[in-house]
Amino acid sequence: MRLTKFTDYALRVLLLAAARDGTRTTVGMTAEIFGISEAHVKKVVHHLISAGYLSGARGRAGGFELKKDPSDINLGAVIRLCEADFGIFECMAPRGSCLISGVCALPGIGSAARDAFLAVYDKKTLSDILLPASAFDRANPSH
Amino acid sequence: MRLTKFTDYALRVLLLAAARDGTRTTVGMTAEIFGISEAHVKKVVHHLISAGYLSGARGRAGGFELKKDPSDINLGAVIRLCEADFGIFECMAPRGSCLISGVCALPGIGSAARDAFLAVYDKKTLSDILLPASAFDRANPSH
Repeated sequence: MRLTKFTDYALRVLLLAAARDGTRTTVGMTAEIFGISEAHVKKVVHHLISAGYLSGARGRAGGFELKKDPSDINLGAVIRLCEADFGIFECMAPRGSCLISGVCALPGIGSAARDAFLAVYDKKTLSDILLPASAFDRANPSH
Repeated sequence: MRLTKFTDYALRVLLLAAARDGTRTTVGMTAEIFGISEAHVKKVVHHLISAGYLSGARGRAGGFELKKDPSDINLGAVIRLCEADFGIFECMAPRGSCLISGVCALPGIGSAARDAFLAVYDKKTLSDILLPASAFDRANPSH
């Protein structure tokens, strides 16, 4: 059981944007810092811009920055936004099919477990996990 | 976020074995009932035999049956047994690498969320979700 890379990267992008506090960040820079593909970062950034978490500008002076205060960015909300499939079991997905799905108690327990999982993130905002800009410095001797 | 098919199938196999209470079930029958591959079912059954949840016999009269009382089969324990990767984030896996993994608070929140998820299953045993043998009958008009 694991969150998708998409969600993982979204949280990293938000942490980086918060650390750079008002200084624009580029997709290329983000990809380099985390050693991940630019294409992935681009999709994540677009998604976070659409959802109002980031503001973005195109062109040479382009890049993205945080649009909301970190204390207004709830981690549970970010996870719900980014996780496409919260099915837990196949039968809980829209196209899921299992012979016993009409009578089985597992989907109910799965929903309760998912809610308990998300409740932990719902109690946290980006401001609870802020890092200094130096944490993202590849030349930082602590890494 | 979803449990693996392996875990999903393991829970189905245990439900079926419990419903057939003392009557041996074959891999082929299980695969047919759930419309899934025999190869997958075989791996799951072997894993559950190794862990002491099922007993199995080879040959023409072969098959598997429940080895423990359903009230002694904790669902949280089954999920922990079957989920190979409980990393939540890449950085929590043994080979995970992320520049900020030494200073980031996300793995701690991920662990707490995973524990909250599992705690819901820990409170349930197979006896809480038992189904009658008729629930697995493809000819049952309720399906």
